[in-house]
Amino acid sequence: MNTPLTPQIKRPGGRSAQVQTVVRKALEELIAQEGRDKVTVPAVAERAGVSASSIYRRWGDVNGLLGETATQRLDPSRPLPETGDLKGELAAWARELITHLNKAGNTSLLKAAAALAGSEDTNCLKNRRAEATVLVNRAQARGDAAPSVQQVLDHMMAPIIYRLIFGSGVQPGLADQLADELFVLANPNGSA
Amino acid sequence: MNTPLTPQIKRPGGRSAQVQTVVRKALEELIAQEGRDKVTVPAVAERAGVSASSIYRRWGDVNGLLGETATQRLDPSRPLPETGDLKGELAAWARELITHLNKAGNTSLLKAAAALAGSEDTNCLKNRRAEATVLVNRAQARGDAAPSVQQVLDHMMAPIIYRLIFGSGVQPGLADQLADELFVLANPNGSA
Repeated sequence: MNTPLTPQIKRPGGRSAQVQTVVRKALEELIAQEGRDKVTVPAVAERAGVSASSIYRRWGDVNGLLGETATQRLDPSRPLPETGDLKGELAAWARELITHLNKAGNTSLLKAAAALAGSEDTNCLKNRRAEATVLVNRAQARGDAAPSVQQVLDHMMAPIIYRLIFGSGVQPGLADQLADELFVLANPNGSA
Repeated sequence: MNTPLTPQIKRPGGRSAQVQTVVRKALEELIAQEGRDKVTVPAVAERAGVSASSIYRRWGDVNGLLGETATQRLDPSRPLPETGDLKGELAAWARELITHLNKAGNTSLLKAAAALAGSEDTNCLKNRRAEATVLVNRAQARGDAAPSVQQVLDHMMAPIIYRLIFGSGVQPGLADQLADELFVLANPNGSA
């Protein structure tokens, strides 16, 4: 490889990452301020100060951009809790999720993502299943009684997401209540 | 009131109801065949064979039309089950809901409605809370042990809607499983 004379221009990786950052930021601002319906590729391009063609080239269309941004942004980037107590770990996991999804713009992005969901690529919540699987598998490896991964999704994730989309807000304390309910449901006789 | 000479022309109620029917049908076909993003007022008007201005006049914009249609169409029109056994009634209620939401176009309409949800007017699922309230109140009036309405929504409605939006399909049998889980959760010691 040749050493570039003008690194700012000749480093496509850096430039591309920069475009992605400004485009995602413009998209999030537009959704939060104007709503999903006002989000078009030309509108995002104008706000981001990039050409529309650079967006079409990278993301295909506005749905590709929305789906990828939702998958990225709705992912709270943090290590999973690990305390040796599954119920407490699930409650902490759900609390972080609620706090993250309550942030400005993220609930709007969640609703926009719901409209796109249904295929592997656009399902912005698939990483939550993977995380629940890690937590449940660790508890089982310790020999602890544990609900199934599907029960975690049905009785903790689903009520949180349902209330965020169709309800009027969610408090972080809901996480503890749902963890309590899940453990009653999955372990009705209280045996460990 | 004068007796109209030409009832076909002078009956605005009949004409208006007819417009609503063709417009809703055109909207549902467009969503099912093309996806939410292709749905615009001019596209719906063209397919329905009405003027765009008649749609703007009646529904304001495409979101008004979507919200109202979703509220109507996602409502399974049927009497609530009444057998004297709350668990069986909730299972039957949820089974009908799953069957209805699984119909062609209704899942797409649900996803579109999710993107609009959040206010009283556009919340296409608010009638489900009212129905759960009727079922729970009736059981309590009989003196039966019953979960709270919020528990019905969190642990039956939410998993069904979550799986429909973000998952890969829901079978009617899920209704019975969720009713079983709800009753363990709400009545852990098995006392009636």
